[in-house]
Amino acid sequence: MPAMSEPSFSAPLEETVVIIGVGLIGGSLAAALRQRKLARRVIGVGRDAGRLEQARTLGLIDLGLTDLAEAASMADVMVFCTPVDRVAEGVRIAAAHVHPGTLLTDAGSVKQPICEAVADVPGFIGSHPIAGSHRQGMDAANSELFDGRMCVLTPLPSSEAAQLQRLDRLWRSVGMRTVQMSPSDHDQALAMTSHLPHLVASALAGTLSPQNRLLTGTGFRDSTRIAAGDPELWCGILLQNAEQVCAGIEAIRGRLDSFQAALSAGDAAAVRQLLVEGKQNRDSLENM
Amino acid sequence: MPAMSEPSFSAPLEETVVIIGVGLIGGSLAAALRQRKLARRVIGVGRDAGRLEQARTLGLIDLGLTDLAEAASMADVMVFCTPVDRVAEGVRIAAAHVHPGTLLTDAGSVKQPICEAVADVPGFIGSHPIAGSHRQGMDAANSELFDGRMCVLTPLPSSEAAQLQRLDRLWRSVGMRTVQMSPSDHDQALAMTSHLPHLVASALAGTLSPQNRLLTGTGFRDSTRIAAGDPELWCGILLQNAEQVCAGIEAIRGRLDSFQAALSAGDAAAVRQLLVEGKQNRDSLENM
Repeated sequence: MPAMSEPSFSAPLEETVVIIGVGLIGGSLAAALRQRKLARRVIGVGRDAGRLEQARTLGLIDLGLTDLAEAASMADVMVFCTPVDRVAEGVRIAAAHVHPGTLLTDAGSVKQPICEAVADVPGFIGSHPIAGSHRQGMDAANSELFDGRMCVLTPLPSSEAAQLQRLDRLWRSVGMRTVQMSPSDHDQALAMTSHLPHLVASALAGTLSPQNRLLTGTGFRDSTRIAAGDPELWCGILLQNAEQVCAGIEAIRGRLDSFQAALSAGDAAAVRQLLVEGKQNRDSLENM
Repeated sequence: MPAMSEPSFSAPLEETVVIIGVGLIGGSLAAALRQRKLARRVIGVGRDAGRLEQARTLGLIDLGLTDLAEAASMADVMVFCTPVDRVAEGVRIAAAHVHPGTLLTDAGSVKQPICEAVADVPGFIGSHPIAGSHRQGMDAANSELFDGRMCVLTPLPSSEAAQLQRLDRLWRSVGMRTVQMSPSDHDQALAMTSHLPHLVASALAGTLSPQNRLLTGTGFRDSTRIAAGDPELWCGILLQNAEQVCAGIEAIRGRLDSFQAALSAGDAAAVRQLLVEGKQNRDSLENM
């Protein structure tokens, strides 16, 4: 795995980087590329010209365009930061207008359906920067979002080594560590580390009755924070990875069953053991 | 419900307050009482003389004693901040040594077993300050811990009104809002707002495999933060409230089932609706 030290580049890595979807991830990537002078020009693409103008005023992008085909024709690198269920369609449209050698990627949190759908598009390699915030949108964008975080690259056997290296350099240049996995391995892992936690937080929040609101403490609030995320966005993610997420539900159901059996039997040793396992796993994430 | 503004008192409310268990809660209460000059003397009781001396050096208490009976004989108010499965025994020992009119209470997060076990002890009324931190012990103690947080008082029909008023004043004097509930209503509510969330966070943390650690993001970390809590402490809490916690497990299992059914059927409307309900509940906790 590459070292975490921030690389220094004496010249821009790329000429024109086009970012489709200037929200938290797209806006932060744009900001990081501009601030570190890693691209000569960053173009934002979106459906709302007013929002793009706002992104330009905020200093996130150099230029905003509502026409994806026009932007594609100007691109050296395209990064699709749209909701996962809209990536493949956008890539396909863009692919018809890019010049040869353009690198295309995305930032979606589900990879198999996207990588499969555009497997025939030359220059496309999937990626997933694991970075986020409970805040949404370009107002939460910041150039430090990716610092020290992990980015998963999901090349196919047909992917060009030179393009993969270029993609790896792009994410590392904004401060990320990178790892390569197959799209399906990625989806299986992220079901457990991201999609299931979101679903569980939402299910837990869903059990709260209005009269109990005043009796919640920091524990309830921490555990359910991500349940405040955008339902539309997460509906797309969960459905795109439904099979793996359902396997995740089975896994946590198994642990809930064990807790219930131990509590019903008044078996302190078993309850303690379950809590110890949870604590050990959680503690293992500190100092990482 | 009392107003949230901080009350001002011109003279100490109580002469000698004895706090049994000088950890996060006990230590913070001691600090708050001393800092606001709400008691003439705060005595800490524990089994470890070295730890008590440390608490005294930190300025949390005026005096540390390892003999509960001795401390009881000096007390005007006693607050048991020991693990829930040790409160009733301590109250019973202390009750044999207190002078008439002494107020006894606790800070346990389960109330029915305690209040039932010591129902015949004059002057005892249960309470539960809903305040905490993922940090443990007296080193995390701070006098602001209770500011604006909720404290549940659980009097029995036999409780004296004057003692209840005195208890209410004690918690309000350190910045808390208060509400009265029966012990069993409290336990039913806290099963959903505190005990179930802890168990679910632990179960979720328990599903993490070592190879997936590097692929966790802020969502997983937030959702599982409380799983790092002391297993011994939480084992006691969960077992003391086992029946209500098991009812809570059924409740979240119901929502997980709904998610699974919706995902398996590819029913976007149903997935979205579940996520919207979770988000609405979570959002309702903001600005409270």
